[in-house]
Amino acid sequence: MAPAFVINGELAGGKSATANNGGRLASVYSEVQTSRIDHELPLPSVLKGSFKIVDGPPSSAAGNPGEIAKLFPCLFGQPSASLVPCDGPISSEKKLKIGVVLSGGQAPGGHNVICGIFDYLQDRAKGSTLYGFRGGPAGVMKCKYVELTSEYIYPYRNQGGFDMICSGRDKIETPEQFKQAEETARKLDLDGLVVIGGDDSNTNACLLAENFRSKNMKTRVMGCPKTIDGDLKSKEVPTSFGFDTACKIYAEMIGNVMVDARSTGKYYHFVRLMGRAASHITLECALQTHPNITIIGEEVYAKKLTLKNVTDYMVDIICKRAELGYNYGVILIPEGLIDFIPEVQQLIAELNEILAHEVVDEGGLWKKKLTDQSLMLFEFLPQAIQEQLMLERDPHGNVQVAKIETEKMLIQMVETELEKRKHEGTYNAQFKGQSHFFGYEGRCGLPTNFDANYCYALGYAAGALLHDGKSGLISSVGNLAAPVSEWTVGGTALTSLMDVERRHGKFKPVIKKAMVELEGAPFKKFASMRDEWAIKNRYISPGPIQFIGPASDAVNHTLLLELGA
Amino acid sequence: MAPAFVINGELAGGKSATANNGGRLASVYSEVQTSRIDHELPLPSVLKGSFKIVDGPPSSAAGNPGEIAKLFPCLFGQPSASLVPCDGPISSEKKLKIGVVLSGGQAPGGHNVICGIFDYLQDRAKGSTLYGFRGGPAGVMKCKYVELTSEYIYPYRNQGGFDMICSGRDKIETPEQFKQAEETARKLDLDGLVVIGGDDSNTNACLLAENFRSKNMKTRVMGCPKTIDGDLKSKEVPTSFGFDTACKIYAEMIGNVMVDARSTGKYYHFVRLMGRAASHITLECALQTHPNITIIGEEVYAKKLTLKNVTDYMVDIICKRAELGYNYGVILIPEGLIDFIPEVQQLIAELNEILAHEVVDEGGLWKKKLTDQSLMLFEFLPQAIQEQLMLERDPHGNVQVAKIETEKMLIQMVETELEKRKHEGTYNAQFKGQSHFFGYEGRCGLPTNFDANYCYALGYAAGALLHDGKSGLISSVGNLAAPVSEWTVGGTALTSLMDVERRHGKFKPVIKKAMVELEGAPFKKFASMRDEWAIKNRYISPGPIQFIGPASDAVNHTLLLELGA
Repeated sequence: MAPAFVINGELAGGKSATANNGGRLASVYSEVQTSRIDHELPLPSVLKGSFKIVDGPPSSAAGNPGEIAKLFPCLFGQPSASLVPCDGPISSEKKLKIGVVLSGGQAPGGHNVICGIFDYLQDRAKGSTLYGFRGGPAGVMKCKYVELTSEYIYPYRNQGGFDMICSGRDKIETPEQFKQAEETARKLDLDGLVVIGGDDSNTNACLLAENFRSKNMKTRVMGCPKTIDGDLKSKEVPTSFGFDTACKIYAEMIGNVMVDARSTGKYYHFVRLMGRAASHITLECALQTHPNITIIGEEVYAKKLTLKNVTDYMVDIICKRAELGYNYGVILIPEGLIDFIPEVQQLIAELNEILAHEVVDEGGLWKKKLTDQSLMLFEFLPQAIQEQLMLERDPHGNVQVAKIETEKMLIQMVETELEKRKHEGTYNAQFKGQSHFFGYEGRCGLPTNFDANYCYALGYAAGALLHDGKSGLISSVGNLAAPVSEWTVGGTALTSLMDVERRHGKFKPVIKKAMVELEGAPFKKFASMRDEWAIKNRYISPGPIQFIGPASDAVNHTLLLELGA
Repeated sequence: MAPAFVINGELAGGKSATANNGGRLASVYSEVQTSRIDHELPLPSVLKGSFKIVDGPPSSAAGNPGEIAKLFPCLFGQPSASLVPCDGPISSEKKLKIGVVLSGGQAPGGHNVICGIFDYLQDRAKGSTLYGFRGGPAGVMKCKYVELTSEYIYPYRNQGGFDMICSGRDKIETPEQFKQAEETARKLDLDGLVVIGGDDSNTNACLLAENFRSKNMKTRVMGCPKTIDGDLKSKEVPTSFGFDTACKIYAEMIGNVMVDARSTGKYYHFVRLMGRAASHITLECALQTHPNITIIGEEVYAKKLTLKNVTDYMVDIICKRAELGYNYGVILIPEGLIDFIPEVQQLIAELNEILAHEVVDEGGLWKKKLTDQSLMLFEFLPQAIQEQLMLERDPHGNVQVAKIETEKMLIQMVETELEKRKHEGTYNAQFKGQSHFFGYEGRCGLPTNFDANYCYALGYAAGALLHDGKSGLISSVGNLAAPVSEWTVGGTALTSLMDVERRHGKFKPVIKKAMVELEGAPFKKFASMRDEWAIKNRYISPGPIQFIGPASDAVNHTLLLELGA
């Protein structure tokens, strides 16, 4: 069924844009895409009527407030802001010029943040202009932009991806780069800029806000919490957008694989999930699907587990299941697992050193350069991984850890250990591993109702806060376990999320990644159930994301548990 | 939300079954799973009222009718049957004892076939008994079964997987095996057996029907067309169940990856799709998503393309796209691609021979044993693939073709060729390949509305045909482009789908796999559009399968095009 806005295969209003963005606008949409475009987004009640912006108490920092105060002399200490209903006119005469930029990896819902900003301007500051900077922060620095009109953004409503204006990984952080951003802000006469990004991008957004403020420029800067990894969050910013959708897409696939495992009865599926730094995605997927084995990087790190420990943990469960007659299962592994294992990091560091300076002889004399612990680990690794560690180096001479297929490595290590146990007589079954990596599939899906609504509110709030003259805040929408109408809306001082790290002898501000808390409710829930999941099969198959019906408004477990709901 | 039928974490009626099937019944279902259980299935109008079964004209065979007649002396020539409305009682007093068995790989909808048979018996032959044979045909031979009650099958309604009774890959084909099946049929006093399977399983179902008939046994046998590969179909059996769901699951993922590719602008995603024999899945996914490049095995074979040809085709498009500024794209590859390339088969045969009999010297003298063509191909292959071809052998000394990751091989070959073109000055961009394999994820998803309805009708029809005393038919539901109420229902003589193959000096009956027809409507549609898709980005993102709403009743393109709808 061709959607209504397709004219001769080209979308209305899309012709001029086609050449710029690779043709999204010229596509004919699928039925589901089409049905989503006109899906009406509910707003929190406070955003529907007149509201005023109320400041809270002065804020501090997540750590080292003294240093943060020095790094942000203008912004440090500023209060967070809340929107509260009031009487008065719903819109103002003041017209704004606002820019928006997407920074870093894709996350479902990004387009809706932009729609939220746009609709705020339409509803509350008629005649305003919204510029979309193309290709991420580089677009800000090079003043590469497009004016976002109603027609332009229409086909992107509730759609996945970042291709409306695309994203990029450049950073605005050096004095020269600040200068370029400044020029753009002056050239476009910007009242505000919304930076949609992760921890780094929001840190830089705050630096930019500080910079503009220190120069008495009128351009304000607002941040917006984006990352599927779910590791940008705090008390006031309960979750980052995209996490909900990505986890549900991965959980759909995991659930399918579980049903397959149980039906076939002969495979162990090793599923590696995106998320290098934190294991939130893996934890959430475990809560949604109840796999037999789940490895959480933060726990491995806290318990100082070795690769042998992790392998043994898996093999113990596989043996116990074999006794019960279950020679199948599903195992979840976070992408960043080996980054959490100190001995692996140590081995890699030693190998980098050796390969840079020594001759690697076929006889293996070079191995004498390894410490005992690293040598033991090296010999423990499957040959293919040994080879990978020896051969592939990036231009800086480092192992390309990202290219190591952890799930395949673990299959081989489990195989080897099971062979050993067979000889010992403690295992007597068939083991067949199947590997999976779920990553790119989840970054650009159609946003769930939750992400669609959350992003729209985040964008709308960003518009409101900029309109009010706020700067250096991150758009914050709370009370997310309640219906949308009851969501709270405000902005949190970015400096209040910051600590410092010492790099190259200087203090650098950072928003620390929120790792999986071993004392947090989601991990505790998981930990209380995993032994049962290991042995009894409690698989849940979440099925495909639904946009209509009772199952369409579910919120992810991590968020609900963290909110105590 | 816990579904209504969960009692203390165990499903009502499930306790006895838990130990047998690995615990599906003890799971708490997801909201989507729960919402599907009570989803009411529409029946074709003819199945709602009174109907009679009308025979068509005598049938022949797909090829070599003389030989088929010899192989099936009792059944050959029997007419296909149609259900037509009539006046008369809706149910009969006759009670039946029916068995059902799942054979081969999982396909979404299998549970609904069983529900269809069960409901038929409930509605039309009250007091009948349905036995589910466990673990595939082996269950028939060993008389391993479970009596399927209303409570037992309830949690499996509209659910994916085959775990209600599980499946297996054993075959009933030797005289001894027929004897075992016979004993089971007599022991359980079976009036009928429904075999749910692919081409081989349906061939064997027909042999079993012939066998029972020749011995004047009362047990009739009905087949049912199952395979996600979509390669079991004919004029009267328009599609096999599971194909619709599996393709839509893969297409969701492909669509997501496309949006990611366009948003990121720097990756070529090489997606290998399940389906070893025929490329129907790849073709259907292409029609649903419009990738830049799609390789169809049957075309490669028909045009006698070499691996170099395939690589060049890809590289030509990649270069053309680079000129237009698009350094990203999505490429679909059927799992069985290399089986379609004669030169690869030839090389593998030669290597098997050499490795079995010769010493493989490091200097490479052994390569002189290769024919010129195979040597050229071998040298053309990436080193990793060369090693895979040299090292990995199955217990019979053959290369494990299935383990060759074609998508990774093609990435390397494309990389090499692009490097060459860079040196020649005809390409001047960055190429980054990302590999994906979508397989297990699609075999056990929740069936789409189409598959759920289709399977239910197939099962209901199988019940009706057995009730009428038919044997050696395959359940056939037609007019599938129309609303369910207008679907036609009947049974097709399995012998009419057969041809013979000469194996070990004997004629063996086979239902030929339906390959992608290069003159068929689906391929022609694809062929007419692929040049545009290659250069202009016409990506479509189908999104997740919906169970409610306007997008939930779509039927796959292949079926619609084949039906001329």
